[in-house]
Amino acid sequence: MTAESALAARAFKKVVALSGGVGGARLVHGLSRVLPPEALTVVVNTGDDFEHWGLHIAPDVDTVVYTLADLAHVERGWGLADESFATLDMVRRYGDDAWFQLGDRDLATHILRTRDLQRGVPLSAITARLAKALGVTCTVLPMADGPCRTMIETEADGTLPFQTWFVSRRTEPKVKRVRFDGRPEAAPGVLDALAEADVIVLPPSNPYVSIDPILSLPGVRDAILTKGHARIVAVSPIVGGLAIKGPLAEMIPALAGAPASAAAVAKHYGAMLAGMVVETGDEAGLASLAPLPVLATRTVMKSRDDSAALARETLAFAAKVLR
Amino acid sequence: MTAESALAARAFKKVVALSGGVGGARLVHGLSRVLPPEALTVVVNTGDDFEHWGLHIAPDVDTVVYTLADLAHVERGWGLADESFATLDMVRRYGDDAWFQLGDRDLATHILRTRDLQRGVPLSAITARLAKALGVTCTVLPMADGPCRTMIETEADGTLPFQTWFVSRRTEPKVKRVRFDGRPEAAPGVLDALAEADVIVLPPSNPYVSIDPILSLPGVRDAILTKGHARIVAVSPIVGGLAIKGPLAEMIPALAGAPASAAAVAKHYGAMLAGMVVETGDEAGLASLAPLPVLATRTVMKSRDDSAALARETLAFAAKVLR
Repeated sequence: MTAESALAARAFKKVVALSGGVGGARLVHGLSRVLPPEALTVVVNTGDDFEHWGLHIAPDVDTVVYTLADLAHVERGWGLADESFATLDMVRRYGDDAWFQLGDRDLATHILRTRDLQRGVPLSAITARLAKALGVTCTVLPMADGPCRTMIETEADGTLPFQTWFVSRRTEPKVKRVRFDGRPEAAPGVLDALAEADVIVLPPSNPYVSIDPILSLPGVRDAILTKGHARIVAVSPIVGGLAIKGPLAEMIPALAGAPASAAAVAKHYGAMLAGMVVETGDEAGLASLAPLPVLATRTVMKSRDDSAALARETLAFAAKVLR
Repeated sequence: MTAESALAARAFKKVVALSGGVGGARLVHGLSRVLPPEALTVVVNTGDDFEHWGLHIAPDVDTVVYTLADLAHVERGWGLADESFATLDMVRRYGDDAWFQLGDRDLATHILRTRDLQRGVPLSAITARLAKALGVTCTVLPMADGPCRTMIETEADGTLPFQTWFVSRRTEPKVKRVRFDGRPEAAPGVLDALAEADVIVLPPSNPYVSIDPILSLPGVRDAILTKGHARIVAVSPIVGGLAIKGPLAEMIPALAGAPASAAAVAKHYGAMLAGMVVETGDEAGLASLAPLPVLATRTVMKSRDDSAALARETLAFAAKVLR
């Protein structure tokens, strides 16, 4: 850790990151290397959660936990690094649903979670227990214990649950609108963490389907505005007009009527935003949003060291912006 | 097939086998090789069924189906031959229940069954679909769609569910009594099959915990007695005073107050029994039960050919006895 980044890490007693899946998890992993465990709380999107084979799947929660535990399959972006697919093979032999790839080790997570949910244990308590068992030391909170389902209203194929649209239909049906079915209370600890946070980091996650579900929960926007000044520093998920992963680049023109850019993402977050971290070269479009502070740097995370470096730079930038 | 056994197979239009797990499944496999598919119905014990990891496990049904599909692990006596245990490893990593060994491929069965049960599909319909998908051509019926749980009342440890006593406690607590919690209707097809059967074969399964649960269901004994004469031919699960597999040799003295023997098993079935197949050397003890017809032969099944040979001999013996 450099002197500057050590300083940045010490500048914040409480950092909250809101996160979707892959991109979010990568920056969160970096933050977990830079901050002491008690200083980091991650609030994870559960709008993508769904039932498959009768099991409760929480893709973003698992991606974040597996990534923090250094067990994730980094290149693939989902599931565990050391994985096999024997159960899936047998399901295929039974002629049953094999469109969603669940690995054998990954299944343990879904099976135990589903069992405990049926026993009445809240998702947040289950997540805390499983994360701890895997050695995760910071706090990981699913955004809510109750269901909030991201639904994709398409132009030609009606309304599809997110996973159906994303995995089974490969994001091909053109998006008209995103809505959330269900508006559960935020999970215990979420509003307090947001209210107390010195800085709220939005990693490069999809604003519409990863961050907005969290922002849609009762009390979340108020908690973010508690201190009376903008505390969000976002890392742009758009690099050179493209999304590193996922369907965001096509969603922005469809939903915001603007080209995919860091500026479009910044506009989306509006007054809550205290600063924006973008890929060098992408800062131009943000000039129109002045006086929004912008850090132009390398934001693409290909390794764990990239993640830690970006986390350090983001915190140092936040420390300056929020001084 | 020899001329004699071909004749025996043709002598019966409808054979019903009642079955527990391993020993039962082996003879049932033999019967399936000797009889045309439409002539064989297997009614399988579900008293051992239980919930594990929130999944509905039906150990005897699965052993019978896997064995009939030539997918069973023959030596081990449970699960699939080609199996891995990655999910179990991960469950262990989570510090959760790892006392019952569920394989990755096997899990597909429990997962799909549990999902369909929760959707309201009866166990019998689920079993039919899964068995068919694995290529099983004869009829396999779980004894009931509703729960009937075998409970072991022990001398010193209170009452234990069967699997807890059998697997987790390794049958160590001494049995005082066996009882069945729940008395559901027999599954669709069970009573008709029993009423119509030319012969009812009891393979070498444990009478107390594999066969009695089936006999305890409403209407089953009446259906067995429909034709007014004994139609059961049983293969003794006791060979030379020992059980080939499982806790039967200790259960007979505890529950019947007699030494473990083929005769004790024959007495247990009483007037329903038309004939008994025993290991050569074990027929002596049965003399006191004359005039019960007895076939002394080799009953230990170590290979699929052993199973088919014993099935042929049993049917030929039944054809003589029931002539």
